[in-house]
This record gives sequence, structure tokens and C-alpha cells, in this order.
Amino acid sequence: MTATLLPSSPPQSLSPNQSLTPVSAQVNTAGHLQIGGCDVVELAEHFGTPLYIVDETTLRQGCRAYRAAFERFYGGEVKILYATKAWNCLALCALMLQEGLGLDVASGGELYTALQAGAAAQEIYLHGNAKSAAELDMALEAGCTLVVDNPQELTLLAQRAAARQQVARILVRVNPGIDVHTHEYIRTGQIDSKFGIGLGEMGSVLQQISTLPQIQLAGLHAHIGSQIFDLQGHRDLGGVLAQLWTQAQQLGLALTELNVGGGLGIRYVESDDPPSIAAWVEAVCQGVKQGFETAGLPLPRLLCEPGRSLLGPAAVTAYQVGATKQIPPSPNLPQGRTYLNVDGGMSDNPRPITYQAIYTPLSAQRPEAEPIQTVTLAGKHCESGDLLIREARLPEVAPGDILVVLATGAYSYSMASNYNRYPRAAAVLVNAGQAEVIIRRETYADLIRQDVVPSHLKSGMLES
Amino acid sequence: MTATLLPSSPPQSLSPNQSLTPVSAQVNTAGHLQIGGCDVVELAEHFGTPLYIVDETTLRQGCRAYRAAFERFYGGEVKILYATKAWNCLALCALMLQEGLGLDVASGGELYTALQAGAAAQEIYLHGNAKSAAELDMALEAGCTLVVDNPQELTLLAQRAAARQQVARILVRVNPGIDVHTHEYIRTGQIDSKFGIGLGEMGSVLQQISTLPQIQLAGLHAHIGSQIFDLQGHRDLGGVLAQLWTQAQQLGLALTELNVGGGLGIRYVESDDPPSIAAWVEAVCQGVKQGFETAGLPLPRLLCEPGRSLLGPAAVTAYQVGATKQIPPSPNLPQGRTYLNVDGGMSDNPRPITYQAIYTPLSAQRPEAEPIQTVTLAGKHCESGDLLIREARLPEVAPGDILVVLATGAYSYSMASNYNRYPRAAAVLVNAGQAEVIIRRETYADLIRQDVVPSHLKSGMLES
Repeated sequence: MTATLLPSSPPQSLSPNQSLTPVSAQVNTAGHLQIGGCDVVELAEHFGTPLYIVDETTLRQGCRAYRAAFERFYGGEVKILYATKAWNCLALCALMLQEGLGLDVASGGELYTALQAGAAAQEIYLHGNAKSAAELDMALEAGCTLVVDNPQELTLLAQRAAARQQVARILVRVNPGIDVHTHEYIRTGQIDSKFGIGLGEMGSVLQQISTLPQIQLAGLHAHIGSQIFDLQGHRDLGGVLAQLWTQAQQLGLALTELNVGGGLGIRYVESDDPPSIAAWVEAVCQGVKQGFETAGLPLPRLLCEPGRSLLGPAAVTAYQVGATKQIPPSPNLPQGRTYLNVDGGMSDNPRPITYQAIYTPLSAQRPEAEPIQTVTLAGKHCESGDLLIREARLPEVAPGDILVVLATGAYSYSMASNYNRYPRAAAVLVNAGQAEVIIRRETYADLIRQDVVPSHLKSGMLES
Repeated sequence: MTATLLPSSPPQSLSPNQSLTPVSAQVNTAGHLQIGGCDVVELAEHFGTPLYIVDETTLRQGCRAYRAAFERFYGGEVKILYATKAWNCLALCALMLQEGLGLDVASGGELYTALQAGAAAQEIYLHGNAKSAAELDMALEAGCTLVVDNPQELTLLAQRAAARQQVARILVRVNPGIDVHTHEYIRTGQIDSKFGIGLGEMGSVLQQISTLPQIQLAGLHAHIGSQIFDLQGHRDLGGVLAQLWTQAQQLGLALTELNVGGGLGIRYVESDDPPSIAAWVEAVCQGVKQGFETAGLPLPRLLCEPGRSLLGPAAVTAYQVGATKQIPPSPNLPQGRTYLNVDGGMSDNPRPITYQAIYTPLSAQRPEAEPIQTVTLAGKHCESGDLLIREARLPEVAPGDILVVLATGAYSYSMASNYNRYPRAAAVLVNAGQAEVIIRRETYADLIRQDVVPSHLKSGMLES
């Protein structure tokens, strides 16, 4: 197991989403876990815990794997958009732009961050099933492409664009009715979904668009789900979309872009076996090429939106170990249980309590030591369900030790809360022995920044 | 149903935790929902949505119901602590202090807020299964009582107190091994829990305490769970704790305080039938009095920690309605489905996606209209599982209408996130026709406050 976790020289051919650890993870001369050339124990000491440690090499290798695979498997133009919802912040947006990716944003706040990070209008695609009028205006102001989710939004957008004497560039989000095998919460392409326009309704929507001078339909979008291991859904998607493409053309709509969403899964635990980035890209290209060739259409400009597969494996979260609690064996619990407290939990990673997500731990002091115990890694929150890993295999650990939870780059910081008024954790980007803060740790003073006390409640308050 | 939701003159005898709406909720002359004398439609227009609306009358009536019941059912001294984790902010801490309640805090951040709100040391009890050394020091500095969770923490606390030449005033958290019927995540008193010291280990812990001059054991604490409807667990608790009390006294420990935690449930939907505050208090008092009388002990100073039962029913969240989506009937979905988008979701209320919590909606424009449709109230987040209410019964509603979700005071704002980089919502406290902001709405600029961009990623960034 140790060898799998920590390849002594990570093969460049390894697809980052198939790696449990960041691709730069190694054991250093102190015997400690090292990521991006930085000793994780030292990072924890210097920056405090909990600490998100983001490996720049994994991020860039993932981006390049997508680009190389599209070059290999697709004959037409391609634009990869980073799905920023996985982790939207200035530094990560900037890094993705440097790698030549565009940005998929899902709210006014994500759009704001993308713009602040320097993204040009043509690099940004705005999603959302419930965009507000203010968000539509913001997108029109920015000049980015909008992915329209439903007919009511289309009507509202046409009104706002008309009021601004502007033409809105859009994709239409199609619900392709493709069901994939993944967690119920993150399936999006099956018929019963809050996202997108059903195939049965697409004809009338395309008809409507053809009558709206304020709307320029650039193409179609579909997203069939997340953390997907089975490629068949993506192979099938191309054909479904090619048919709609033909339908649109018959209405005189000049489409150019096809956005097939994201969805490639990652390895959270040893037994996960996701396809490689190249295999996913190959399936996507195969589906699109076959669908469009069969329909006698030229290849469209192809867009996709990886998020988890880029960010997930790039980061680990480092925690400091606290007290241990032994629950003795009992009839209901024949093996007993060992709770091992760490100084983070559901506020920095809500995925275990929200999705029953399972993660892999690693000792930063002794990453190569054989696991000798199964413990329940308990978070610090005043909540029984705040358990980071229910069955964590670990070597001996002592209070003060640093543990990392692997593959926490996606949907951890982005979903983080201040539950129990814990300041949100810091994040550092590591590379070539350098660690640079990309998210500053919150302070106690930050916690009361939004708090206001009406005057009639002020008796007894501290002077401020 | 309408009459139950909105009593025209709310009986003062109504226990707030049994009310689906805030106790001041009424229909005003415009036919709109009114809370604390404020028109909810007007509040939404003025303060924006999503908006937490907190009813001061419900909060104060709840506090007074607890106090009155303890006066009636208990012969000894009582101190009620507000469990701030339900919603910890300056204004709510200040209000609880005004009502004579103390504050139960579960982290350094909650302690910080309690202190900033003006709480005196003797009003504060610090909880936590994984308190850091820094949090222990902070509590010692403040002089508050610590609820010690485990023997390792006890040892660490004794060291920190010795280093500060101070005596730490503590309660010990006991895991009483009482199993209650509630959601798995929020059971805390069963044997297999990360919280507290098992009964089998208490003897040695009490022994240890009796040898530590830096530790003053003020009493015992137990908490058996949350959102509890069955009072038997609380009746049983007194006897278990009285036995431990005797054991401690035999070691020469002079206990004075017994803290029985919280746990009283509230009504989230019509069919919920929680006991009243008075009934819960009666069961608690009965258990303690019987246990202590049987053991031949004088009544202890009794503490309890209501959170959800005070805050839950006091607040509603107001949302604006967006687009509707009709999913036609199909073999897998014989009735079809109507998705109704609102402009909030899992970021302002993570309980539906985390705990499968079920809530009740109400139209703010037409609170008395008969429900004529069942819809799925969908949140705005880029997440299929972001559904606020799966089966919401509603009258006709149109885009732009204001809907409220009832009973959202507990564990909504406190667990709120910035997922999809949505600014966190504002909260207003309403009373006698006045609405005062207690939580300021975040801005887009607030979202990037913690973001830092390393210089090597700055190519293409906006000048700032």
C-alpha cells in the first residue's frame, strides 16, 4: 500500500485523477511526507492547522493531460474550462488562465472572482439554474457567455439584453436524459433534474431563440454528473447533442460550440478506479465525432468543464492530532471503537457529513509506516456526525502528530463554513520547495465582521 | 392547515418550540405574512433575499418559558445556558444575556463572540471534544468554566492551569450511555460517541481529579442528543448522574452543579409533535429530583443548554421565487415533477442536504391561500442535491413572489457557507414593527478578502 501511495518517482504518464496523493508527494530524508518539495510537518508548524496544501505540479499536470488528450483524440478546436465551483479563488483562477483554460462560473460571486483574476470575457461561461436579474446584468456587462438553463431565464435575458441594447451570447443547457451511476446528489443529466431543458422541450426553445434578436445562440451544453467512473454516458452524449444541433441548424441558428460538461471521477480511496483523463477525453471525442459524422455535420468547437479531476487530487488537508478515546467492546459494538480527534472537521470538509464521502489518511511524520490500527477520525465540532473518516487505517500516532487527509482539493474549501465559529483554514500552494499562501486564515475578529448589535440589546456589551 | 400555521392571536401559553411559525406571525391587512409587526414582503424588498427574519418575541417567550417551568418544577437554583452553536452572533448572545441566560460555547470563536457580547466569566461554559491548547488558555484567561471531555484534555488543562498559576473550574462531560431516538448524526449520549467519558471510566477520572490541585470540579455534564421528542431519556438521566455524584463525593470532591444538556425538539412540519418546554423541564426536574432524593443528596444547582428549541422556531428564511421547471411524467416518475427555483439554498441552509431535514414553506404574499400544488423547492447552487424542500405544498406562486421557509433559526446561519461564492445572507431582528439588522449581508468584495495571489500567478491579473 505504501508504495502505491507514494511512488518514489511519480511517472509523468500517471493521470493525476488516478493518484491518491498529489503527484509530487514523496518521502523526504527526514522520513516525512513532502509535497511540492515542502515538508508537510514543517508546513503545518509554520502555517498552522488545519491547512490545505495545494500541489502546483498536480494542477498543471492535470491541465496538460486534458490538453494533450484533446490534441490526440479530437480533430477540431477545443477549449477547456475549469469548473471553478470545485474551488473558486483568485489564485486558482489565475493559475488555470495561465494554463490556457477558461473558467466556468456558477454565480455572480464566482464571476466576480474570475474577472478579478483577470479573465477576459471570452474565457468565462456563466452557469446557474436560478440566475438573478442582477447576475444576468453582471454577465451582460462583462460580455461573457451565459449558459441558459430554462425558457423563463431566456425570456428574462432577452429583456435585460434589449434594455442594454446588447446581444447576449449563450449556450443552452440541455438535459440529455442520461442516467449515470454516481451519488444521487451529484447526478445532473437524468430526466428528473433541476438543471437544463428536457429534450422534449428543446424544439420550442430553439424556435423561441430563432425569434429573439437579442440572443446569439453559440451552441449547446450538457452535463451528466460528477465523480463518474463509467464512460458510456459520455460516449452516448455526442449523438444526442448532434441531433439537437441539426434541429437548430434547420431553424437557421448558426451553432459553433458544443460543451459536454465535466464529470470525471477521482481516486479518494485505494479501491477507487477512475478512468484516466486521456480515457475520458477519448470517450468524449469518440462520442462527439461519431455523433457529428453520422449527422453529416462538421466538428464543433468542443468545450468541457473539469473541476474535481483537476483540483481533487492536487490538495491534502493537514490536521494536528488531539486526544484519543477508546470505546470498550459491547454487544452493539463488538470491536469497540477508537476515536482520534483532529483539529478540523465538517467546517473545512463538509463532504463526509454531507455525502458520506470516504477519504484516505496518511501520517505526515511516518508516511511509510505500516497501518496497525483502525480508528475513527473525529472532527472538533460539537456534532456527533462530525467524523472525517469512519474507518481510518493508521500507524501509531500521538497527540501533536500531523495527519493529512488526501484528495481534498475539490468541494472542501469551496463548501467550508464557520460552524461553531471556527475561523476558516488557510491554504498554501506548494512547488519546488516554496509554499505561498493563496487563502489567508481567518481570525477571531473576522468572525464578528458581519455582526451588528441593535442598540436595545447593548446593555452589558463590551465597549468597542 | 392555515389556521394552525397562523393563529390570529397567538396564545401566550403556546410553547414556541411547538409552533411552526414564529409566535408573532400574523396575516396583516394587506393579506401578507407579518412577523414581529413587519410585513415580510416589505422586509424582503428592503433588505434583499435570502433574508433570515428573527422574531424577538419568540426568542424571549422561549427563554421565559424555560425559566417559568424551572421555577414551577424545580426546588433548587437553576441556570439556563443558551447553546450558542445553534446560532452564535453578537446580537443573539446579547439578547440571551438580557434574558438572564448564560452561554454554552463550543470553540474559541464562540467564546470570543460571547466575551465580545459582554458575557461575564460565570455566564460562560466552554465545550468541545478537541479543544486546542490555545482554546484552553483562552478559557483560563477568560475565567469561564470548562466542560472537560476526556482524560487527555484533563491532563493538558491541569498543565496549562499550573503554568498560569491558576485553578481551572470544570464540569466533566459524562457519556451516560443513554440512546435516544433521533437522527444518527445528532445522538450524543449513546455508548459509541466521540463525546464524553464513559461510565466505566468515570471512577478513574474522578480519582485523577481529586489529585489535581489545579482543577476545581464544579460538577457533571451530560447531553443525550438533539431534536428529541421522547422525554424518557431525560427522566433516566438524573439517576445515572446522581450515582456518579455520590462517587465523586466519596472522593472528597465538593460538587455543586449538574448540567443536563439540551435536546428538546421543535416542529419543522405540521406532523411533528414535540413536547412543550414545560413538559421537557418537568421531565428533567423529575429525573434529577428523583435521582438525588433516592441517593440522599441535596438538589444540585441545575444547568441546561437549550439551543434549537429557542432559536429554531424564532426565524424564517425569505426567498424570492425564480423560474419553474416542469418535468413531464415518465415511467420512473409517474407524477412528473415541478421544480420551483428560489434565490437561496444549501449555502444559507445546509440542513436539507446534510441531514435530509424537512421544512415547511409559506407564501409571504398569500399565507392564507390553500395549497393547490406540490413542488420541489430547488436552491440556486450548482448541485443537484441542492433542494430545500422536496415536497413543498404551495398555493399558486409567480416569479418574484416571496416564499418563506419556516423554523430555520437553528443551524442555518451557523452552518452557512459561501459555496459557489454566494455572499452569506443578512439577518434582521423584528419586533413591534421594527426590523434591525443583526447580520450584515456579505458583498462580492468580502468573498475575495482572504484570497492571495502569489506573484508568479499574477500575469493577466487586474491591477488592484
